[in-house]
Amino acid sequence: MTSKIVDVHTHVYPPSYISLLRSREKLPYIRIFPDAPNASRLIILPGEDDPSKPSTSRGRPIGPEYWDIKEKIYFMDKHKIDISVISLANPWLDFISPEAAAETAEKTNDEIEELCEKYPGRLYAFAALPLSASSPDIIVKEIARLKSLKHVRGVILGTSGLGKGLDDEALVPVFEALCENQLPIFLHPHYGLPSEAYGPKAGESGHVLPLALGFPMETTIAVTRMIVSGIFDQFKDLKVLLAHSGGTLPFLAGRIESCIQHDGHLKKAGKLEGRRSIWEILRSNIYLDGVVYSEVGIRAAIGASGGTRVMFGTDHPFFPPLVGDEKEWLSVRTNYDAISNAFGEAKEEAEAVLGRNAIQALNLED
Amino acid sequence: MTSKIVDVHTHVYPPSYISLLRSREKLPYIRIFPDAPNASRLIILPGEDDPSKPSTSRGRPIGPEYWDIKEKIYFMDKHKIDISVISLANPWLDFISPEAAAETAEKTNDEIEELCEKYPGRLYAFAALPLSASSPDIIVKEIARLKSLKHVRGVILGTSGLGKGLDDEALVPVFEALCENQLPIFLHPHYGLPSEAYGPKAGESGHVLPLALGFPMETTIAVTRMIVSGIFDQFKDLKVLLAHSGGTLPFLAGRIESCIQHDGHLKKAGKLEGRRSIWEILRSNIYLDGVVYSEVGIRAAIGASGGTRVMFGTDHPFFPPLVGDEKEWLSVRTNYDAISNAFGEAKEEAEAVLGRNAIQALNLED
Repeated sequence: MTSKIVDVHTHVYPPSYISLLRSREKLPYIRIFPDAPNASRLIILPGEDDPSKPSTSRGRPIGPEYWDIKEKIYFMDKHKIDISVISLANPWLDFISPEAAAETAEKTNDEIEELCEKYPGRLYAFAALPLSASSPDIIVKEIARLKSLKHVRGVILGTSGLGKGLDDEALVPVFEALCENQLPIFLHPHYGLPSEAYGPKAGESGHVLPLALGFPMETTIAVTRMIVSGIFDQFKDLKVLLAHSGGTLPFLAGRIESCIQHDGHLKKAGKLEGRRSIWEILRSNIYLDGVVYSEVGIRAAIGASGGTRVMFGTDHPFFPPLVGDEKEWLSVRTNYDAISNAFGEAKEEAEAVLGRNAIQALNLED
Repeated sequence: MTSKIVDVHTHVYPPSYISLLRSREKLPYIRIFPDAPNASRLIILPGEDDPSKPSTSRGRPIGPEYWDIKEKIYFMDKHKIDISVISLANPWLDFISPEAAAETAEKTNDEIEELCEKYPGRLYAFAALPLSASSPDIIVKEIARLKSLKHVRGVILGTSGLGKGLDDEALVPVFEALCENQLPIFLHPHYGLPSEAYGPKAGESGHVLPLALGFPMETTIAVTRMIVSGIFDQFKDLKVLLAHSGGTLPFLAGRIESCIQHDGHLKKAGKLEGRRSIWEILRSNIYLDGVVYSEVGIRAAIGASGGTRVMFGTDHPFFPPLVGDEKEWLSVRTNYDAISNAFGEAKEEAEAVLGRNAIQALNLED
C-alpha cells in the first residue's frame, strides 16, 4: 500500500469571497476590461490593472477552478492527491474594513469548513483571520472559535500582520492564542517588494519578477524579522509552515546566521546572548512546503529543516496548464519530479514529504 | 601534493580610493563621528550615517585590512589561501562624476595591477570599469586597455550598469567588448532593496536585513533581468561569476523557470520560443562563488551550476573576527566547513571548488 499524498498549499476563493472581489473597484478585485469583454481578470498585485498594459499582463484569467470546489476535487483526482489542506488565497481578509472584519472572517471560515464537510477525508483547511479588526481581541476570539470547525488545522497569514509586519509586539496575544490552540501558521506572501526593485524594464517580463522573486523574498524578510526579533524564543511552541519552501530561507539561512553573529549593533544590544541559532529554529519551529519547482530546491529545504518537516504542495489554482487541454499541470509535475529526483531510491523518505509529514504535523486522519 | 586554494571574492580599497572616500562628505565615504572620535567608519549603504543611530549601527569600523595589501597577504597566509583574485569593493566607481570616470578607472586599475605585481603568483584581479563615463565608448576603451595589465582576469560590476540595470540595451557594446576580450564579469551587489521592504523595526536588527537579504536579492534580480531580457542568448560567451553563490539564484531557479514558462505576456510576445532554460544558462554562462556560509547553500550552488563552476571565496575584509584577537575568521571557517561537509570523502571535488575551478576558469598560473 502506498501512503497518501497530501497537498498543503492549495487555495480557494469561496463563492462569497468571489462575489466580494467582483463587487469591488480597486485592488484586490475581479474586473472585466472593455477591450477584452469575454474574460474576467483577477487583479491582486499593484499595477496589474493598468489599462495601458497589454491585456495579457493584467492580472490573470479566472474561472471556476478558483471558486468551484468540484474543480479542486477533479484536480486532486487527476494528480493523485488524496488530501488537500485548502486555504483562502491572498490577499485573504487583509483589505476588509475594520467594521466588517469579524463577520467576514466568520462567514469565510464557516464556508470553507462546509466545503471540507462535503468531501469527508479529502479536505482540511487553514482558516483566515480578521487581521484588520479594530482590536487584537477580535482576532483572538476568532482563533478560539476555530475549535468548533472540525476541519481547521491552522491559519493562513500574510506578512502584513496588523499592518506593521509579523515582528509587531501588538501580535503577541495572537501568537499566544495560536500556541494555546495548537494552530500552526501557514505564512504566505502577497505584497512582494517595492516595484522600483525590479528596474524600468520589469513590465516587459510580465509577472516574472514579482512572482518569482518578490514573493519568495517577502516571505524570507517576514520570517527573518520574526527570528531576529526573538518571537520564536518567546513562543517556543509557535509552528510556522512557510510557503514556497521558505521563499529563500533554506539557501540564505547560513548568511542570515553569519550576519546576525557579526552584527555589532545586535551584539551591543545583548541580543546575541542565549539566542537559538537559525538552524535550531528551522528544525523546531519551521515547516516548509515543497512548492519550489526543482530538485535543488527540495534538497535545500530538506537540508535546512530536515526530511520530516517538508510537505508537498501545488499552489493550485495558480500556474495552470500552459495549453488548455493538458491532462497534467506542468507546475504540479515539476514539483512531483523534484521530490522523486531528490530522493531516488529512498521511497519512504519521499513518501514522508508527499504526505506522511503533513498527516502527522497537521493531525490529519490517515 | 594538495592543490592550491584560490579566493575569488576578496576586496581591496587601494590607498587612492581610500583617500577619495575620506575626502567625500556623502555616501559612499569614510567619516569620523564627533561622538566616537577614535574610529573611522566606512559608510556605504543609505542611512548608515544617520547620526541618531547608535554609533555601532553607523557603517562599519575600518582599518588597514581595507587598504594595506600586506594585511591581505597576512590574511591569506593565516587561512592557507594560495591565490587571491582581488577586486575593488562596492560601490566601485559607480559614484564618480562622468568627467573623472575614465581617469579614476585607469588609475585604480593600474594601482591594483601594481599590488598584484608585488606578490608574484599570489594575486590576480578583477578590474573596475568607468560606468559613469559620458559614453559607453570610454568603458569599451578601458576594457581594451586591460589587456596591458597582466594580472587582470575579469571585471567587477555592480547591478546598476549605466544607471538602469544590466538589462539595458546601452550595455551591448560593453558586453561585446567583454566577450571579445574574454573577460568574465564578477557581479556583486551594493544597492540592496528599497528600505521600506524591511519594515519599521529594521533598524533594531543592525545591518542584518540589508546585508543578509537585500544583497542576495539584488544579485538575483539583476541576473534574472539579464536572463529574461535574453542577454545570455545574445552573448552566448558571456561569463558571469555571481557573488554570494548567486544571491538566491540556485534556490529560486526552478521557480523562475516555472514563472517564465507560465507567463502569458512572455508567451504572447514570442519570448518563450527558442530560449534556453535557466538551467542551461546556469551551466554555460554562470559561475558561483562559495560565499554562502552553509553546507545547504554550497550543495544547492553545485546542484544548480555543477561542481566545476563553484569557487571558494571569503568576502575579506568584511565579516571580520567577532573578537579582535581570534586566529581564524569565523566567516572563513564557516565557508571552509560548508565545502568540506558538502563533499565529505570526495576530496577531489572539494579541491576543485577550493581552487582548481578558479585556476581553470580564470586562467591563473598553477
